[in-house]
Amino acid sequence: MILALDAMGGDHAPKETCLGAIEACELHSDLEVLLVGDENLIKKELSSVEKNALKRLHVVHAEESIGMNELPTVAIRKKRHSSMRVAMQMVRSGEAQGCVSAGNTGAIVAGGVLVIGRIQGIDRPALGVALPTLNKDTFLLDVGATVRCKPVNLYQFALMGDFYAKHILGVNSPNIALLSNGTEEIKGDEVVSAARDLIKSSHLNFYGYLEGDSIPFSVADVVVCDGFTGNALLKFAEGLGQAIYSILKEEMGHRVLPKVGMMFMLPMLKDLWTRFDYEKRGGTPLLGVNGAVIKAHGRSKSTAIKSALSVARSFVLQQGVELIKQELEQGGER
Amino acid sequence: MILALDAMGGDHAPKETCLGAIEACELHSDLEVLLVGDENLIKKELSSVEKNALKRLHVVHAEESIGMNELPTVAIRKKRHSSMRVAMQMVRSGEAQGCVSAGNTGAIVAGGVLVIGRIQGIDRPALGVALPTLNKDTFLLDVGATVRCKPVNLYQFALMGDFYAKHILGVNSPNIALLSNGTEEIKGDEVVSAARDLIKSSHLNFYGYLEGDSIPFSVADVVVCDGFTGNALLKFAEGLGQAIYSILKEEMGHRVLPKVGMMFMLPMLKDLWTRFDYEKRGGTPLLGVNGAVIKAHGRSKSTAIKSALSVARSFVLQQGVELIKQELEQGGER
Repeated sequence: MILALDAMGGDHAPKETCLGAIEACELHSDLEVLLVGDENLIKKELSSVEKNALKRLHVVHAEESIGMNELPTVAIRKKRHSSMRVAMQMVRSGEAQGCVSAGNTGAIVAGGVLVIGRIQGIDRPALGVALPTLNKDTFLLDVGATVRCKPVNLYQFALMGDFYAKHILGVNSPNIALLSNGTEEIKGDEVVSAARDLIKSSHLNFYGYLEGDSIPFSVADVVVCDGFTGNALLKFAEGLGQAIYSILKEEMGHRVLPKVGMMFMLPMLKDLWTRFDYEKRGGTPLLGVNGAVIKAHGRSKSTAIKSALSVARSFVLQQGVELIKQELEQGGER
Repeated sequence: MILALDAMGGDHAPKETCLGAIEACELHSDLEVLLVGDENLIKKELSSVEKNALKRLHVVHAEESIGMNELPTVAIRKKRHSSMRVAMQMVRSGEAQGCVSAGNTGAIVAGGVLVIGRIQGIDRPALGVALPTLNKDTFLLDVGATVRCKPVNLYQFALMGDFYAKHILGVNSPNIALLSNGTEEIKGDEVVSAARDLIKSSHLNFYGYLEGDSIPFSVADVVVCDGFTGNALLKFAEGLGQAIYSILKEEMGHRVLPKVGMMFMLPMLKDLWTRFDYEKRGGTPLLGVNGAVIKAHGRSKSTAIKSALSVARSFVLQQGVELIKQELEQGGER
């Protein structure tokens, strides 16, 4: 399998992207990675790699790159030779079966739609995240591709979430919940309540409305919301994790007994941390576009890049795009 | 000062509401509480209270109460003799200077608007919460009164948040942030970006857009968003806290060393818990209505009711409604 990697995308590119590609190839013997970006920089990063490993790493030169703060649509349209756009064009042309980028999220979404194109029957794409919750993962979408949604967008997100939970996360008959401001049917605005009617009358296993406090308790396999709310939730959770960590560190700093206690607790805390470590679990699929496009976190180090490449590989192996199309056909049968 | 308490509102009413009123009167010697609800039930709860304390507790009979799952607008309109509505009518008539309820949130919002009325110049009310963050509290509004907003609603929330942070939370020149899906000006939908323009051109100390991950790091004194998103964030945070607690308990269950460590850490964890304990900090003001209306958490025990009554008392002492009117006049000068 050949995957294209935007080697210039992310805060730690190209060093960590190149390292991530190497690690991914070590992990998956069927994998070849096209490293798209500044040829000289990439080759420098690969200079210390042993010859055998290099066989499955190919450099594709792209003279431009898209910055984190550039206007997404403008950048993707104008920078025709940017690493991100070139990587996506290789998916479109079939030279690569999927692509990964840790770059500008808006540009990934815009590029997915403009360069690769939407799946017929999907009006707007969604970014989904497998959120670690109490007993399992909950797949939350959209976390930022489509800021505000129409009911039909939320309905299509539900269909795509169902596909992802079933075929990528391996959940039997996933239950799909719609985020609202209360569980009673009278809650939600017109958009949310119209989306509820659409999902309810489909073949999906619909849980109903769900309020934010239930998400961490694993009550649903898939939670659907608009990209504004999903982004706020995901980022808030990330920020809370970081804040709690820094509070613990600060408290540790000026107390003696807790330090002793901490030593005993370290193995447990390490386990917990792994459970919630987005980097190690990395790889957010852009669902609804006509190819495997996986976004990695902007702060990705090599492990997160490797993980995102693994997610892309699974998506391709499971024939993700084809299955979404099937899901849409089933959804159309309502 | 006389405050009306919806003695029948909340999961633990009337026992805990009555206890909370007693505790509040013990704390504030200037306070009298009108306990509104089923006379027999309330008197039973007060039967063991010593005579002296009873002088500042008055029972006001109300034969109905509004359930947690009733349709808010219908319930508040039809149940004219409900404890919540009667408490609000006493605010309107001036018999009480403010009121507190731990009942149906939607009914509190509907009652605030329909029974007490909006402040002139405020189109929609907002519920605000002082969220504990790294170094201080951040006042988040709206957390559920106005599900979807127009730009002018968000602008008015910013004005009311400014007032609350200054006069109730005691922050000098609070900075006001607008929640968005990114910090760059190109982020946000039309509503959020139009609200940004309104706030930016006002006298307010505007921080700009803020993404969810910054909230826990205390970068803003006030964070403004629509009630749908604010509700999702607040509930999610509550759920996360509960989930982390149960994970810790579960992990503790089957490990020995962490238990030893935990013993050492208990004082620290207790401090942390107090910092994040919504119950002890309770009392969510319904801003924008023509009187002091404070919502307590549905699961309130006596401490939370006491705390909500204290918040109502501060709001009245600080002449909250008058100050919001002044803030609006200043806002009008833009």
